[in-house]
Amino acid sequence: LNLPVAPEELERRLREIGRERSHHRHPFHRLLQEGRLGRGQVQAWALNRFYYQSLIPLKDAAILSRARDVEFRRAWRQRLVDQDGDTEGEGAIARWLLLTESLGLDRELVVSCQGVLPAVRFAAEANLRFVRERSLLEAVASSLTELFAPGALAERVAGMLAHYDFVRQEALAYFQARMEQAPRESAFALGFVKREARTPEQQEAVMGALIFKCDTLWAQLDALFHAYVQPGQIPAGAFVPEDR
Amino acid sequence: LNLPVAPEELERRLREIGRERSHHRHPFHRLLQEGRLGRGQVQAWALNRFYYQSLIPLKDAAILSRARDVEFRRAWRQRLVDQDGDTEGEGAIARWLLLTESLGLDRELVVSCQGVLPAVRFAAEANLRFVRERSLLEAVASSLTELFAPGALAERVAGMLAHYDFVRQEALAYFQARMEQAPRESAFALGFVKREARTPEQQEAVMGALIFKCDTLWAQLDALFHAYVQPGQIPAGAFVPEDR
Repeated sequence: LNLPVAPEELERRLREIGRERSHHRHPFHRLLQEGRLGRGQVQAWALNRFYYQSLIPLKDAAILSRARDVEFRRAWRQRLVDQDGDTEGEGAIARWLLLTESLGLDRELVVSCQGVLPAVRFAAEANLRFVRERSLLEAVASSLTELFAPGALAERVAGMLAHYDFVRQEALAYFQARMEQAPRESAFALGFVKREARTPEQQEAVMGALIFKCDTLWAQLDALFHAYVQPGQIPAGAFVPEDR
Repeated sequence: LNLPVAPEELERRLREIGRERSHHRHPFHRLLQEGRLGRGQVQAWALNRFYYQSLIPLKDAAILSRARDVEFRRAWRQRLVDQDGDTEGEGAIARWLLLTESLGLDRELVVSCQGVLPAVRFAAEANLRFVRERSLLEAVASSLTELFAPGALAERVAGMLAHYDFVRQEALAYFQARMEQAPRESAFALGFVKREARTPEQQEAVMGALIFKCDTLWAQLDALFHAYVQPGQIPAGAFVPEDR
């Protein structure tokens, strides 16, 4: 007998997935926030993460493009504003470029997305393809990794400021803004998922979507670890830090 | 020898396509603005057109979802605001519902999109699929039908007010707003197309995209004419006016 679980139980299971699979727990993130990376490794992280970052508004627009409900679209549209801002220099993407610049990376190199690890590219693009091809419910559920963001972001910011003399407070404006935006966004997405996932199959699909999204974030950090930490094999064409 | 034409020549050819194929010239639109339709026929038009209307924000979000340039996205995003508004009752979709309501159509019937002619559905969906599947350049070019809108909209509004006692000025708020928005939007899209279509192949693709879009609008009016004017064969499941 296959019955749906209560919305609260679904939420509990989703948070459980986050506890086990959230990329905040990845060894690379641990090294990052414990101050155990060199400047070149932090550069590699920021440059690769920009690629993922640059696809987020495309991902959110793809979700918008499948949402037939005006109210849903009005709420989700705010994510595009958060990402792209209203004018030059505003929004999450511009704030991430503040970080990469303060780390000494050439802006044009970062924006060109040259030097990004192929595995990071593939994982970020898998995420975009997922929201285009799967159901709207799964697409929304795949955004739920934000649910686990605020605490982890605060910890990362504190750790980076404490341990790296090459990281200035201003360069972390991205994280400050995300700590405010992520709870609003994840509350909306969680409410939608709890309301719309009514059958056991839909609930399974929702959990599968969150696991998938966690996998895409984890795989990006695996690739960074492999290339820049251990064994430190940088694939041809990928970014090579100067301090290496 | 296959050479690209100058951007101004491309614009001239696009406007030529509009003169020949714009749906404003369709016999159904002529009857509409000359006051030669009955109330039920105007209802059928407004109800069917709502379906096309309701897909426009999805179409624009699909274009956003493929645009890697932040500035482009910031500009195109405004279309979502124009369509959906910032709050309940705002935006083009809400204004179209003012029109259908003032024509005596039940709001829930219209929003449910029941009774829409299958051919209208297929044509509107072909438009959405086109922007999802073709190049960004073609997707933008397919939006250029707005280039021909302002004059035609003014004529339609004047004609409808002059001829139909069941059409009130307030019900035409949609058209008033579009007359302001369409020139801004089409100027942006035309500038993009003239700048980006550099090879003969791209210029051909741009013209093809505009012809395709004109075809999808024309086909919708053909279906309305067939069902509600001549021969007046309403397919099973489609809206049947009370005054028929």
